[in-house]
Amino acid sequence: MELQKPRGTRDFLFKEMKERKLVENTMREVFETYGYQEIKTPIFEDLSLFTLKSGEGIIEEIYHFQDKGGRDLALRPELTAPVARIYLNQLQKAPKPIKMYYFGSCFRYERPQAGRFRQFWQLGCELIGGKSPDSEAEIIAMAAHCLEELKLKDYQIHLGNLGILRGILSQDSISAEHQDQIMAMIDKGDAEELEKLLNGIEIPETSKNILLELIGMRGHQEIINNVKNILNDYPDALKSLEELESLLIMLKAFGFTDYIVNLGIARGLDYYTGTVFEIYVEGLGAQKQISGGGTYNLIEVFGGEKVESTGFAFGFDRVMEALKIQNPRIPGEERVDVFVAPISAEMKLNAFEIAQNLRKCGISTDVELVGRKLKKILSFAANSGAKFVVLIGARELEEGKVTIKDMTSGEQEQVSIEMVSDVLLNQINNEE
Amino acid sequence: MELQKPRGTRDFLFKEMKERKLVENTMREVFETYGYQEIKTPIFEDLSLFTLKSGEGIIEEIYHFQDKGGRDLALRPELTAPVARIYLNQLQKAPKPIKMYYFGSCFRYERPQAGRFRQFWQLGCELIGGKSPDSEAEIIAMAAHCLEELKLKDYQIHLGNLGILRGILSQDSISAEHQDQIMAMIDKGDAEELEKLLNGIEIPETSKNILLELIGMRGHQEIINNVKNILNDYPDALKSLEELESLLIMLKAFGFTDYIVNLGIARGLDYYTGTVFEIYVEGLGAQKQISGGGTYNLIEVFGGEKVESTGFAFGFDRVMEALKIQNPRIPGEERVDVFVAPISAEMKLNAFEIAQNLRKCGISTDVELVGRKLKKILSFAANSGAKFVVLIGARELEEGKVTIKDMTSGEQEQVSIEMVSDVLLNQINNEE
Repeated sequence: MELQKPRGTRDFLFKEMKERKLVENTMREVFETYGYQEIKTPIFEDLSLFTLKSGEGIIEEIYHFQDKGGRDLALRPELTAPVARIYLNQLQKAPKPIKMYYFGSCFRYERPQAGRFRQFWQLGCELIGGKSPDSEAEIIAMAAHCLEELKLKDYQIHLGNLGILRGILSQDSISAEHQDQIMAMIDKGDAEELEKLLNGIEIPETSKNILLELIGMRGHQEIINNVKNILNDYPDALKSLEELESLLIMLKAFGFTDYIVNLGIARGLDYYTGTVFEIYVEGLGAQKQISGGGTYNLIEVFGGEKVESTGFAFGFDRVMEALKIQNPRIPGEERVDVFVAPISAEMKLNAFEIAQNLRKCGISTDVELVGRKLKKILSFAANSGAKFVVLIGARELEEGKVTIKDMTSGEQEQVSIEMVSDVLLNQINNEE
Repeated sequence: MELQKPRGTRDFLFKEMKERKLVENTMREVFETYGYQEIKTPIFEDLSLFTLKSGEGIIEEIYHFQDKGGRDLALRPELTAPVARIYLNQLQKAPKPIKMYYFGSCFRYERPQAGRFRQFWQLGCELIGGKSPDSEAEIIAMAAHCLEELKLKDYQIHLGNLGILRGILSQDSISAEHQDQIMAMIDKGDAEELEKLLNGIEIPETSKNILLELIGMRGHQEIINNVKNILNDYPDALKSLEELESLLIMLKAFGFTDYIVNLGIARGLDYYTGTVFEIYVEGLGAQKQISGGGTYNLIEVFGGEKVESTGFAFGFDRVMEALKIQNPRIPGEERVDVFVAPISAEMKLNAFEIAQNLRKCGISTDVELVGRKLKKILSFAANSGAKFVVLIGARELEEGKVTIKDMTSGEQEQVSIEMVSDVLLNQINNEE
């Protein structure tokens, strides 16, 4: 009988966990530097939390089940809805803005393929009750700051504002349903299908042409002026463009100007309202988007009082993938610094005692637990990356001494037992 | 419509997350000091992994469901089985001993009650391929080391060896089924029911009396000699007692002697074989056990080659509960050290720029994002625990200066913009 992990899931072993932990902690530190605080929500939620946010269609894509009490539960497919729920349950009266971040796994039932897993991790944040575009500028600068700290290369941060496209569509009285269809098609990036769709809808030829022109636009600050002329007759769209202009000015104050204005971002989710952004990394194939976010009104959708909210999340697994492609050696510490080896079994208890003293001094230490001969112990210690081996011999021990072997240089040094931790602390600190 | 978290689950907000993170990281550090490395397994596994380990009865107590492909999956109720699966899948040929630790949530479908939740966290480790009782001594010393680092008080570490009771039962040819029933009754601590059960089984009167005597025994090293006399006619039980004796000698070498020998520990799980231990904290009511572990042969149960394995886990939520009862103020850092406040809206962009510079120096910093008046900003900053507020005024700014306000002393100091980060870094480091 063969025991296996479920299809589409992963086990993470030592080296990979260390790399993931390092990246996680780097991003956590950046988030905390901006005043975000961690929250944690349950792995499963009422199914209705997600259908309310994303429609019944989502049921097809998620793990859901009835518990023994007949409640419909779902393994969370994302974390924005649970965060909005927490806000509604506990934080409506807290001083604004509220800055929260989360790191946790989400689940999606889909055919496993390169870069897509059934359990995957998201590291993201929500800022509730800030003002636009101030909040958006801070969040985008923070996302860039994370990637800078991680030394990720070849990424592009694309910015847009959904109000521009929506403003045109609303002015032409396009129904909400058609608007959502159009936005979904833009999100897919399928220009041909989009044109077909627009041809089937009653929309002025000018608007249609402007839409098709806008969604292809990519550039920097100069785009604002180019588009201003085009939008002269669309006051709502123009207002959103001015919001985007302010965002760019603020981003400059936040020290981040390496963005690409992209009016073709649509995010495909109808609770996004204004500023949106996505981050892509070349070399990740079809899964090149490592992050996405923007301003949304989910809390109103959930029946709360309207409050401006901005958030984004990193697809943590994709960030890891991007780092691995670019830099196959993410530094990870060795397992232990020191290995304590009795030369023969009679010195075992002394070895335990010395190992334990080193650990209480904060030195990561292994001690022989299998009862092997010295030669085997030394090869195991070398293999496990220990920088020093403390050798415990009977004759030396009588004189209150042990030998420290430097595994890099091969040099050996006799020291008195009381001095072992001092000597090792010194040498380990010197090496670092 | 009211959105709520599912029954029996919890949301963790800022302060609680900080406390949990602090405790988690303290224990992680201890584990890593002993050379344990982290692994992570999926949240759900094939249901059969858990029924194979614990019997079909466990189905009643766990969340299980069929995925859309008809596979029977279960939210993991514990982490020893997944770790054994990882060993079988990937680590059988790795150099021994293998030291692994995990921190993750587990799930159990039961009536929610004080101290018991449907999603709960376990922090534990497995040592595969070490020797007994060497490995057991190290693991028990490490568990004690964790609690010492956490400054937990009033805990008791109880040690026993299942081979003593099993040795008596086997010598009397008690069937495996009856043995398991007896061990389960001992685990429950129900002496009356146990006696009833023994009376219904064909077992010599002497053995019965010895069993009943042994399971009530608590003490220190002196117990060994007392019991030796009793077990004279039970060679297998005597061998296990000698193993326990060696364990106590080794624990002394590891610097830990504050244990209670308890021959009534049965652990209730039939894959435990020799040394077992449990840790209790007074004041936690019915949920006073915060940890348990021992040596087991699960890998053989799963079809692998026999290999000695020792492991234990902390019930992380119970450790948190115990710490809270004993010390209601687990120290947690403030959210941010610095708040940057423009005196009026015109200085907003300068505020962003200065905040961002501080963050790039690693200073946790908030900046006004709501556009409030200064008085409100100051009260929000004070409320959020900021130690310093950087005030940005128009006239000072023209001279290239800002004001740093110490929120504890109320003192204010004018400094040039270039010096802000140096001055703040200095003051923050001095305070710590």
